[in-house]
Amino acid sequence: MSVADAAPVTGLSSEHLGQVAITGITITPVAFADPPLLNTVGVHEPFALRAIVQVHTDAGVTGLGETYGDAGHLQRLHLAAEALTGADVFNINRMRQAVARALAADTVQGGHGMSGMVTGSSTADRVLSPFDVAALDIQGKLLGRPVSDLLGGAVRDSVAFSGYLFYKWATHPGFEPDPWGPALDPDGIVAQARTMVDGYGFSALKLKGGVFAPDQEVAAIKALREEFPDLPLRLDPNAAWTVETSIKVGKELDGVLEYLEDPTPGIEGMAEVRANVPMPLATNMCVVSFNDVPPAIAAGAVDVILSDHHFWGGLRRSQTLAGLTETFGLGLSMHSNSHLGISLAAMVHLAAATPNLDYACDTHWPWKKGDEDIVAPGALTFTDGAVAVPTAPGLGVELDADNLEKLHRQYLDCGLTSRDDTGYMQRIDPDYTLESPRW
Amino acid sequence: MSVADAAPVTGLSSEHLGQVAITGITITPVAFADPPLLNTVGVHEPFALRAIVQVHTDAGVTGLGETYGDAGHLQRLHLAAEALTGADVFNINRMRQAVARALAADTVQGGHGMSGMVTGSSTADRVLSPFDVAALDIQGKLLGRPVSDLLGGAVRDSVAFSGYLFYKWATHPGFEPDPWGPALDPDGIVAQARTMVDGYGFSALKLKGGVFAPDQEVAAIKALREEFPDLPLRLDPNAAWTVETSIKVGKELDGVLEYLEDPTPGIEGMAEVRANVPMPLATNMCVVSFNDVPPAIAAGAVDVILSDHHFWGGLRRSQTLAGLTETFGLGLSMHSNSHLGISLAAMVHLAAATPNLDYACDTHWPWKKGDEDIVAPGALTFTDGAVAVPTAPGLGVELDADNLEKLHRQYLDCGLTSRDDTGYMQRIDPDYTLESPRW
Repeated sequence: MSVADAAPVTGLSSEHLGQVAITGITITPVAFADPPLLNTVGVHEPFALRAIVQVHTDAGVTGLGETYGDAGHLQRLHLAAEALTGADVFNINRMRQAVARALAADTVQGGHGMSGMVTGSSTADRVLSPFDVAALDIQGKLLGRPVSDLLGGAVRDSVAFSGYLFYKWATHPGFEPDPWGPALDPDGIVAQARTMVDGYGFSALKLKGGVFAPDQEVAAIKALREEFPDLPLRLDPNAAWTVETSIKVGKELDGVLEYLEDPTPGIEGMAEVRANVPMPLATNMCVVSFNDVPPAIAAGAVDVILSDHHFWGGLRRSQTLAGLTETFGLGLSMHSNSHLGISLAAMVHLAAATPNLDYACDTHWPWKKGDEDIVAPGALTFTDGAVAVPTAPGLGVELDADNLEKLHRQYLDCGLTSRDDTGYMQRIDPDYTLESPRW
Repeated sequence: MSVADAAPVTGLSSEHLGQVAITGITITPVAFADPPLLNTVGVHEPFALRAIVQVHTDAGVTGLGETYGDAGHLQRLHLAAEALTGADVFNINRMRQAVARALAADTVQGGHGMSGMVTGSSTADRVLSPFDVAALDIQGKLLGRPVSDLLGGAVRDSVAFSGYLFYKWATHPGFEPDPWGPALDPDGIVAQARTMVDGYGFSALKLKGGVFAPDQEVAAIKALREEFPDLPLRLDPNAAWTVETSIKVGKELDGVLEYLEDPTPGIEGMAEVRANVPMPLATNMCVVSFNDVPPAIAAGAVDVILSDHHFWGGLRRSQTLAGLTETFGLGLSMHSNSHLGISLAAMVHLAAATPNLDYACDTHWPWKKGDEDIVAPGALTFTDGAVAVPTAPGLGVELDADNLEKLHRQYLDCGLTSRDDTGYMQRIDPDYTLESPRW
């Protein structure tokens, strides 16, 4: 059988389609309510910002992407969007080159949307990401294949997530209380975990630490272990601890943690901790770009890298990261910032098509109000802590135009233009200072 | 715009296609005439062996793959083919798992088709390769996209190859002379290079060394430099030299070679050579699988890895290798064994869609008789030493059924069942012994 005599398949053509050119890109900043979640750099503001990217093509199909909504990042997205007009959505390699060229003279400052915690990520990869996702969404829609197929094929039908626990206040000052209530001690964290596990079925739990003194957070982890004897537990203090503190905590939690995430800043410090604690060390802070991988491996700094397609350059580049971790015998997990449904869909397709993504992925999903999303409900649901991989073409999610408009209006009304956990905390508590390590 | 209201595109469906299942796989061993090309392990036999893989699907489309034709490898291909029946060609990840499972109990000995020179490659990756290529060929045919699009998009319209020079005898004993004539000294190599450059337009040249004493091969390289002052030159003695000899030759060829390929065996020896010669060191012998990458990087053994989709697990896995070399600042080139047109097409798509494949690729193409191929002529032509990337759906080549039958008949008639450069040499020259390093 040859190309010429291949039997045509219903609805398909064996003719080359030619390029599918980008005719325009719509970038819509949105804001959605976010509870007062505490971390070592401050507290989440009342609204989380995202940018929703719609890539329009001359094939009449539009693809979706989602990324950070900070002002500086938005400026870069617009620079990239201009450079991508006319680009072929089937050629992500050339799209990447166009984005890199457009950013070469970039003098925009700040605004990566990660609140000072992922400062070394590649700007080009961070800006490319939503366009990579949207291009794959378009490819999938045109080709009648889910994005997971375009990434090599799903090796699992659903993707497990971990429940992401946060210390939190009962309310943002001046706002109505959220349904979660406060969580400022072990009992509060256990109650939060119970609500989350009962509601979503998560089969792993992660506590965002670095908020209270290490012994209090150790107590919280031990309380979680008592309440959930079989769930893998993780603790992430966002580099709030010295090497010495990290080692002390690591030894105290021997046999309790699945992994300890970013206890201390930097590759060198992480390597020293890793040599002295019994559990695997994970990171999404000291390895946040391809440039960080060689020194981290040379130093023996980490056991597990948390991928994140938002700063690793999209879905295809994240699979390259997966190849790196597989080759070097490292574990692979997945990081999350506050996000909406387009990102969740992208995370699910990526995780499904990455055989060595061997931990339940992080997600902030439960912290979002149920009615605040820019994708139509129904495509993504949690069952037993996992999301079924969409099988519809592309990402398998549809934009909800009314909600997009509503969340964009909320963005305009809330007045926030960048994530600033520290500034917000300092407005509430003028004595608050940023320190890393803090203990 | 959402999935539901996406405008249908001519000839395309936005409905999910479901699985495209493999209904059967045809594996056809073929033999094609090969001149008496000399290397450090012996001499090419009168026929080179390949296996042509046709993957048939319930969508009525067949995909093509090409790999080694040795008996042991054929047995493994049949094991894999059985395991792949029913598999979805859009899920290469699961195909890979099925192949690995099928080979887990594999007790077949030998037969990797690389004449003792690439012994540490991964069996599963080697066996998966033609099925990965065929699956991508089918995907492309069904989707109306060239394979390069499925690999992220071509960043170049044509792929440059290097002219591959060999010491050779005038004829195989008992056979008619081939048109190339003998090449057993610098003049012979320069004449061969002149023919090859005039015929194909190659803009780089590689000499297969390890045949004569190093000073004779240095003289050949220097003669090539004189005749072709502007062409990058490479020398590949297939690990025929000690560390000391390698360093001596490396210093003698300072400023002459683009890279020196596998002068000495093993990662440790290569690292010692690399620390003491001025030019980059390349390899397709000490780094032949993902397992070899970490120790080679730790040792600082090489500057350039030669990829080869035939033993790196196909096109998608070869792109993972490209991500590894990019991340670690290594160069990336491409290795070749004697091959036919399906492999050439696959190499071209892969190279086109790999931005950091930054050297002209190797190919044995000119050594093949012009009328001996299993793909219909016209799809792949050399202009200025480069092959234009096919833009037709899939690989863009069509099987020539008559020639496939003819080359299969030739396989049956020639009686060869595995590549054995050493045994053939010893039948001609009973005093010949295998040694590495030889000098």
